[in-house]
Amino acid sequence: MFDKVCIIGFGLIGSSIAHNLRNKGLAKSVTCLDHNPEVCRIVMQRGWADHASVNAKDVVVDADHIILCVPVAAMADIVKSVTPFIKQGAVLSDVGSVKQAVIDQIRPVLPQHCFYVPAHPIAGTEYSGPEAGFEGLFENYWCILTPDETTSALALDKVYAMWQGFGAKVEIMSVSHHGTALAMISHLPHLIAFSIVGSAHDLERDLQENIVKFSAGGFRGLTRTAMSDPVMWRDIFMTNDKAVLDVLDRFIGDITTLRGHIVEKNADAIEAAFENSRRLRRALIE
Amino acid sequence: MFDKVCIIGFGLIGSSIAHNLRNKGLAKSVTCLDHNPEVCRIVMQRGWADHASVNAKDVVVDADHIILCVPVAAMADIVKSVTPFIKQGAVLSDVGSVKQAVIDQIRPVLPQHCFYVPAHPIAGTEYSGPEAGFEGLFENYWCILTPDETTSALALDKVYAMWQGFGAKVEIMSVSHHGTALAMISHLPHLIAFSIVGSAHDLERDLQENIVKFSAGGFRGLTRTAMSDPVMWRDIFMTNDKAVLDVLDRFIGDITTLRGHIVEKNADAIEAAFENSRRLRRALIE
Repeated sequence: MFDKVCIIGFGLIGSSIAHNLRNKGLAKSVTCLDHNPEVCRIVMQRGWADHASVNAKDVVVDADHIILCVPVAAMADIVKSVTPFIKQGAVLSDVGSVKQAVIDQIRPVLPQHCFYVPAHPIAGTEYSGPEAGFEGLFENYWCILTPDETTSALALDKVYAMWQGFGAKVEIMSVSHHGTALAMISHLPHLIAFSIVGSAHDLERDLQENIVKFSAGGFRGLTRTAMSDPVMWRDIFMTNDKAVLDVLDRFIGDITTLRGHIVEKNADAIEAAFENSRRLRRALIE
Repeated sequence: MFDKVCIIGFGLIGSSIAHNLRNKGLAKSVTCLDHNPEVCRIVMQRGWADHASVNAKDVVVDADHIILCVPVAAMADIVKSVTPFIKQGAVLSDVGSVKQAVIDQIRPVLPQHCFYVPAHPIAGTEYSGPEAGFEGLFENYWCILTPDETTSALALDKVYAMWQGFGAKVEIMSVSHHGTALAMISHLPHLIAFSIVGSAHDLERDLQENIVKFSAGGFRGLTRTAMSDPVMWRDIFMTNDKAVLDVLDRFIGDITTLRGHIVEKNADAIEAAFENSRRLRRALIE
């Protein structure tokens, strides 16, 4: 499928991509660019790539596909630094969990002679680093591609086929659609979890103890995601802010309406709202 | 422990109490008062009580403990209707999931010559009716008692010992403490679930489909409780309204503060808030 793929950033996602490319025979050669020499040493020692280096010149030259697997905030600087070594006609893609902010960073610094395809594999574990990767990470999970009118159809086909080759279910949607869907599915529930933990902690100490004592499942489950990495989530809310604010304002509006029914002791309105939610949940999920 | 216990309302909780009293030898005789003749027929046929009737006179007379296992909204009328048959010195208790509203209903109609102890076993299944009950329902679950200065110490001891005898872990707390703890653990998470389903449904249809498609765990799990019985939950929000509004307003305040940080693109404040939530979650739960 590819002659040479260069993976930039060899963490959980980057290393899992490398295992897939090599084990499934989708690339003749796989190289690794990582700013951490220790990571490069591990990658070479374990034989997870044909070549690993901290210098772009050593590993990016001649690659026909370059995959950015670095934190969202670092994308622009890295693309700028590798630009001189990207060959004519190469495909560039990424794995960022927000898309508009990544596109906005990459577009202005993207050389004319290469083709960019934004991608977001919805897969992960709570582990990180080059040793966390494994071949099955993407199997049966979704990978969303968010091309626009400037995206090369040929490059899109290649990236699509690669993710399918990894066992992922691939879906194409618009950038804004992706932002809103992820805000609703993932970002808003995380914000609620972060927030409700703070609300519980505002209560007096003896009440807090009882909350922990009696909440076998509910509160524990609801707040589990509040244990997620604060830096990664900070960046998500900084970069998908418009879509998050859109769904957050809908949610605050809806729960404030319910609050009004409770204040007014309007039994019929409360029951109607709950009845409606039950019907919608059934329609949405089943 | 008791000579004769009368269970009023033979549903999931009432029938489970009967099985415990009989199988564990905690009462010489158990009677059932239920407004539904079919329920009384089943109870007698299965031998789940010594006597079952739709008439209070037949089953309440001589009972030294009467347990109200009926919906919260029905408590006052039932206590009024059985009052003439309650014997001198009898203990009256209930199993309502809200306490202040039940106490407010029972106090004004309670005869001077009997002793009331408010109780809330935190146990249940998704099934209901006399055939749903089983002896293990309360085993290792909490039962909260909410006595005040007017509660008879002797009556409290009896009810405490009975729930312990059922295998429950028994805790005594104030009515307002119970209301706030349950609002935080259970009522607010339910309100969020009911609300977020509505927010998702406000989105355009193709976006809704994607929300369902891509939300393997998160959104599904978060909104599962939106399938709960609308009438039961309406009554909880109608009767525990003060405590619910207290924790709801804390939550709306906290999430609105986070919203402000996102609007202002204040990365430091977002990260600090998430870091704090992670620390609090760890401190609260572990």
